Amino acid sequence: MNANKKIALTGDRPSGKLHLGHYLGSLKNRVKMQDEFNQFVMIADLQALTDNYKTPEKVRDNVFQVCLDYLAVGIDPSKTTIFIQSQIHAISELTKLYLNLVTIARLSRNPTVKEEIKNKGLEDRLTAGFLVYPVSQAADITCVGADVVPVGNDQIPMIEQCNEIVDSFNSLYGPVLNRCKAIVPEIGDRLVGLDGKMKMSKSLDNAIYLSDEPDTLKKKVMSMYTDPNHLRVEDPGQVEGNTVFSYLDIFATNAVEVEKMKEHYQRGGLGDVAVKRYLLDILEEFIKPIRERRKELEKNPQFIWDTLKAGCKSTNDTANKTLARVKEAMKINYKF
Amino acid sequence: MNANKKIALTGDRPSGKLHLGHYLGSLKNRVKMQDEFNQFVMIADLQALTDNYKTPEKVRDNVFQVCLDYLAVGIDPSKTTIFIQSQIHAISELTKLYLNLVTIARLSRNPTVKEEIKNKGLEDRLTAGFLVYPVSQAADITCVGADVVPVGNDQIPMIEQCNEIVDSFNSLYGPVLNRCKAIVPEIGDRLVGLDGKMKMSKSLDNAIYLSDEPDTLKKKVMSMYTDPNHLRVEDPGQVEGNTVFSYLDIFATNAVEVEKMKEHYQRGGLGDVAVKRYLLDILEEFIKPIRERRKELEKNPQFIWDTLKAGCKSTNDTANKTLARVKEAMKINYKF
Repeated sequence: MNANKKIALTGDRPSGKLHLGHYLGSLKNRVKMQDEFNQFVMIADLQALTDNYKTPEKVRDNVFQVCLDYLAVGIDPSKTTIFIQSQIHAISELTKLYLNLVTIARLSRNPTVKEEIKNKGLEDRLTAGFLVYPVSQAADITCVGADVVPVGNDQIPMIEQCNEIVDSFNSLYGPVLNRCKAIVPEIGDRLVGLDGKMKMSKSLDNAIYLSDEPDTLKKKVMSMYTDPNHLRVEDPGQVEGNTVFSYLDIFATNAVEVEKMKEHYQRGGLGDVAVKRYLLDILEEFIKPIRERRKELEKNPQFIWDTLKAGCKSTNDTANKTLARVKEAMKINYKF
Repeated sequence: MNANKKIALTGDRPSGKLHLGHYLGSLKNRVKMQDEFNQFVMIADLQALTDNYKTPEKVRDNVFQVCLDYLAVGIDPSKTTIFIQSQIHAISELTKLYLNLVTIARLSRNPTVKEEIKNKGLEDRLTAGFLVYPVSQAADITCVGADVVPVGNDQIPMIEQCNEIVDSFNSLYGPVLNRCKAIVPEIGDRLVGLDGKMKMSKSLDNAIYLSDEPDTLKKKVMSMYTDPNHLRVEDPGQVEGNTVFSYLDIFATNAVEVEKMKEHYQRGGLGDVAVKRYLLDILEEFIKPIRERRKELEKNPQFIWDTLKAGCKSTNDTANKTLARVKEAMKINYKF
């Protein structure tokens, strides 16, 4: 680690291959950040297990896929430490210690958790693991001493709760833990899905994956939601709320040409298929190098595991130092 | 460990020196059990920290005192593995994994926890650490693969909850964890305190410690609650509810003599002071060898720490094996 650089932590639940929404929402930013920060990226397998505890083998395979996607988009293991949450022993120990610093009442008021409980219809089936995951997240963040944590807007309450734990700890035991700052990437993580309605997500089956093959990509682009009233080519069409144009706004490099197409579409005479073909070429050009790098990397799975192993080792070194300082401050560092 | 013997786990929160109540309620039983079982005795410093998190240095000193008491009463480190909870990394990891197998609703219904929340007036200030401590206890028990857990009656719900977690885990991931059985020692742990009203306990300041000096012991015995209506020696006195006689029932070896004294006391003519002197001699005879052994041991604190260190190492060996099997079953054993 470069002592002159601040420490950043981000991560993903390994819920499957990554898609364009992940790219815009976080991956792109990480590729940029790895030059400015000591960057840690966590694959949160334990957090994924909190609501996938019946299918652990899926979580495990997803860890591999996610790491493959990271490397394919240009996250560079020589600049970014990629690690697997379950392999960092200090996280569990810190979680257990922090649990004494947080009330159940406070956890029950966490807006992110409340929202997820509501969305997932948990309530009575709410597990302890789920309710206390802000505490676990505080352990993730503090174990590497993160200064900044890039997150979506919906995760800001988690960062606040982390800092409350840090403050409680430090006021009880002395200034050991590092406060962190949430940074919400400009781009946002709200890329709309193929259906034009919801955020792109695996569970809604409206995603374009970074690993999609050309024919899959074509099928997906051709099925994208446009203007439902634009029935004939010669009809005027709507650009607002038209998914294809919203993707062009993001991915097309020639803004002048896109502006011309929008005008043409609005006055009539430009068909959906033509616009979709134009977008398809752009997306294919964007995804192709990622897909190809991914395929290359996939040929050597040991390299992926070695990358993860090295990342876990390096993270354990850092996290164990944090844990040692925490235990020292709490007087549970028995030096026999 | 002797593979032919079952595994027993007991433990104490290190809340201070141990007293006669501890001796009757558990220590005596442990000295006996160490020949029949592979016995683990846990000093639960982390559990003590759940409600003493502001005074960790006290908890730490108590760990030492408790171990001293163990050895002084005859718990033999060559037969019993004495360990410190916070030094067993697998406990935190298992706790974190088990948290996903228990609902908040279920934890809130745990009678032992409910009772403690009420007694301590926690409610709104209830910490997550406190609510989930049955889960942590399940980790304590399962990490050493305990078959039997000697507990007080009030702890039986904790053992039930542990077995529920074991059953959930095993039905999800396969038969990895061991169910355990609560055994409630005959003697019970309800030795009445000097005040004759409540169970002997440090917090009620009504305890006779195994380390009490002769003059302290004398003062305590002379202050014991007897029959408040037995004002003059010649008055008839009550034996029921008379703390001195209840101690004689437990500690005197000459039951015939005690019976004679009871009759004498009941018909009048036997003073409290005489009965208390009789009890004092018996208690002094009981405590003296413990006190002396304790003083001998105290001269060499390194021996106590070495005993704890060896116990922690041996427990870590066992617990890490359990954790490895758990992670294997959950498919989070990345063999890089």
